[in-house]
Amino acid sequence: ITAEATVVLRENGKMREKSLTMDTLNPQVKAVEYAVRGPIVTKAGDIERGLQQGQKHPFTEVIKANIGDSHAMGQKPITFLRQVVALCSFPELLDSSSFPEDAKQRARRILQGCGGQSLGSYSASQGVDCIRQDIAVYIEQRDKGVPADWDNIYLTTGASDGIVSILKMLVSGQGRSRSGVMIPIPQYPLYSAAISEMEAVQINYYLDEDNCWALDINELHRAYQAAKEHCHPRVICIINPGNPTGQVQSRKCIEEVLHFAYEENLFVMSDEVYQDNVYSPDCQFHSFKKVLYEMGPEYFNTVELASFHSTSKGYSGECGFRGGYMEVLNLDLEVKAQLVKLLSVRLCPPVSGQAAMDVIVNPPLPHEPSYLQFHKEKRAVLGALAEKAQMTEQILNTVPGIKCNPVQGAMYAFPRIFIPPRAVEEAMSLGISPDMMYCLRLLEETGICLVPGSGFGQREGTYHFSLHTLRLESLKLVFQPLHKLLVNKL
Amino acid sequence: ITAEATVVLRENGKMREKSLTMDTLNPQVKAVEYAVRGPIVTKAGDIERGLQQGQKHPFTEVIKANIGDSHAMGQKPITFLRQVVALCSFPELLDSSSFPEDAKQRARRILQGCGGQSLGSYSASQGVDCIRQDIAVYIEQRDKGVPADWDNIYLTTGASDGIVSILKMLVSGQGRSRSGVMIPIPQYPLYSAAISEMEAVQINYYLDEDNCWALDINELHRAYQAAKEHCHPRVICIINPGNPTGQVQSRKCIEEVLHFAYEENLFVMSDEVYQDNVYSPDCQFHSFKKVLYEMGPEYFNTVELASFHSTSKGYSGECGFRGGYMEVLNLDLEVKAQLVKLLSVRLCPPVSGQAAMDVIVNPPLPHEPSYLQFHKEKRAVLGALAEKAQMTEQILNTVPGIKCNPVQGAMYAFPRIFIPPRAVEEAMSLGISPDMMYCLRLLEETGICLVPGSGFGQREGTYHFSLHTLRLESLKLVFQPLHKLLVNKL
Repeated sequence: ITAEATVVLRENGKMREKSLTMDTLNPQVKAVEYAVRGPIVTKAGDIERGLQQGQKHPFTEVIKANIGDSHAMGQKPITFLRQVVALCSFPELLDSSSFPEDAKQRARRILQGCGGQSLGSYSASQGVDCIRQDIAVYIEQRDKGVPADWDNIYLTTGASDGIVSILKMLVSGQGRSRSGVMIPIPQYPLYSAAISEMEAVQINYYLDEDNCWALDINELHRAYQAAKEHCHPRVICIINPGNPTGQVQSRKCIEEVLHFAYEENLFVMSDEVYQDNVYSPDCQFHSFKKVLYEMGPEYFNTVELASFHSTSKGYSGECGFRGGYMEVLNLDLEVKAQLVKLLSVRLCPPVSGQAAMDVIVNPPLPHEPSYLQFHKEKRAVLGALAEKAQMTEQILNTVPGIKCNPVQGAMYAFPRIFIPPRAVEEAMSLGISPDMMYCLRLLEETGICLVPGSGFGQREGTYHFSLHTLRLESLKLVFQPLHKLLVNKL
Repeated sequence: ITAEATVVLRENGKMREKSLTMDTLNPQVKAVEYAVRGPIVTKAGDIERGLQQGQKHPFTEVIKANIGDSHAMGQKPITFLRQVVALCSFPELLDSSSFPEDAKQRARRILQGCGGQSLGSYSASQGVDCIRQDIAVYIEQRDKGVPADWDNIYLTTGASDGIVSILKMLVSGQGRSRSGVMIPIPQYPLYSAAISEMEAVQINYYLDEDNCWALDINELHRAYQAAKEHCHPRVICIINPGNPTGQVQSRKCIEEVLHFAYEENLFVMSDEVYQDNVYSPDCQFHSFKKVLYEMGPEYFNTVELASFHSTSKGYSGECGFRGGYMEVLNLDLEVKAQLVKLLSVRLCPPVSGQAAMDVIVNPPLPHEPSYLQFHKEKRAVLGALAEKAQMTEQILNTVPGIKCNPVQGAMYAFPRIFIPPRAVEEAMSLGISPDMMYCLRLLEETGICLVPGSGFGQREGTYHFSLHTLRLESLKLVFQPLHKLLVNKL
């Protein structure tokens, strides 16, 4: 009798079944797929532990390019942000002369907003009031004066938490009236995972790979009309700048999407966590909210919009703090109360993550002592990311059999790989997708962990992989094996 | 046209409906109730803001006794814990002579376990390896040598997150085969909220108020047999020490519950977040896991158990960090992989909360520099909580019309109030529960925010309120108005 047996005999000879088995597991949980932490990442972890324990592999290090985890890739934290968090965590430091006055001022203000002036108190479920106010001011400045009401701001546990909460509100109905959620393909797999967990209907709209992954409004119409036959499309999700595809949406395209959402009564979810990660000089970040405002009051006062931001990306890269916020627009007042209720069941987002978010929206001003260092560090991070984005594209495009669009923004490349027919057949006969086979071989032979495009979605018959824009050293390391594998082996 | 209108006219004269209204909201979200942050707490917040803006009330301060939020009530953080978190947040402080060596050693070890040695990296979805190892060591010591495997430990975003994740795994089936979840009544409303959100079947077992809120095994059998007629009971949840009822379960009672779960193939969820909050000298905390072990291998190797702990309660009271862990036992291996997958969709628990959890399970040892101060602070907090628990019971029992059981543990009293029949009638005619009317009046007249027993569940025809064991000054403030309201008005 092992701990893992599903059925065991009791002493009295009667059977004791396990309560929780693969047969009795919630089928919605079973249906969830989450590629960026899926089987290939698990395998990479196993190999890594093996290496540490002295196992032999044709390489000495596992390079994980599966997720945007900047600090793990060697990016240094922004000093000012960490000073504020440390001051909030241990307020005795407010008396220390080794911390600058502007960091102390931020920390004092945040602590004033916390119960008992402690980061250890629960905040309101929507977040600390003064941080929500700072966020509203930040959004107004970012959007050149478009009004932002802090009553519409909710702190979240990373952006994922906000996205899941809004989706949860929107899922209802059965059969043909079941809620449909439009998502880009390729997508960030949080969306497909949440949709299958909630048993909503996933409506794919395909980004145009031949046009630098742009969103094509005709494709939106096509997807919507087709979906209407079997579900009730209620939401359109946009990721801008794109994850994993790295495109930055044009203002014109955003306006088209918003017009479409307006006409079809769709709720708009705009994932803007990469808003600070725009590298191409031809591109500019436009928030969906700002464009909506510029379309006039008929749009700005009606279209329901939730947009999301995070501490995890941008120049701060603070994933571990799980900080983030969402701003909602035109939400029905009763629905808003329901949203607060839903959030309150989880009590509150981590308050140290809220403090980190506050620094991002309330950085040092030109007259403040930390201004120069803050901007030097910020520029250095964004400059390095821009350089890597460009290098990634260039290096990948030198490999025969790989074609990579420009990485205009975000932190990823999603190159297409042309896998020879006989390798495709081999994969099919093994029962795995060809791009999964490619990524598994790459991992086994080189220690490089990429995620196959099938985890993000791709047009049938095309194959891709997702690559986080790595340290340049790593990128150069990746190049040769990629080349070898694709040209010689597949 | 206001932002809140459900239907608006487009310029072209066609109607534009809102996508998200009370009619189209996810009905499972609508069904959720969460009393500890419910309407009375919202009202308390409104009054508080009103006071700040100069509105007149018969009181000058709102006293919130709705939730265990220790720091908000003036409890001071444990210095050592905050030192470690500050060091992890801003590692430059590792060079500062004003931090003790044992705090630095803890911080260095945690940072070693983080990607890029930064709190800003994502951790593995189960949490940082070395923190999981520390937790396993802690559990072995707590349970006098009962083995704990760190592979069974998962860091969580507070205990709530772990509880919801495990419940989510267990919910399946339709109609009579729908999963039933046994919960104590009174309960902590996270359970009922999660159950209704997941459309599971709530199975109430009533705690014995006349016997100091003890769990009666016969009541478990009754509830189970009755529920079997209309659902598939799969889980039993226990809160020990009890929230909101403050009882500490006897070893004998725990053994009976585990035997029952063993016989009926139930999954056991043991909410032990108050394990350090035991005040009555006649009571002792026994973990469900330890008792299971002592029942012998037939039990220890078969009963599926998940137990939960948190940084939010105990002596640390660090709610805002959203730290916590769960330990699982006898989980099917494939199911375990599914659990990891489910957790990975949210990426990872906040790493600063993980660091806080590490300090709680790995406090200073007798030979370390912070040992004396740490234990002095810990004793002071637990001593004050014990004193308040006793005083709360005593003071409440001097009020005619109130009967309060001893507060053996946790942080709450759940006294019964005897509301005169004509007040009950009045409430009924207003369409609210009598205890809600009582709490609303108390809030309006005195500024004291209690949560009515109906939000936690109570036997029909009985009324209660929940009171967090407050600062003693506040408790004395509460006494007179309580007395006046119950004796003179109701």
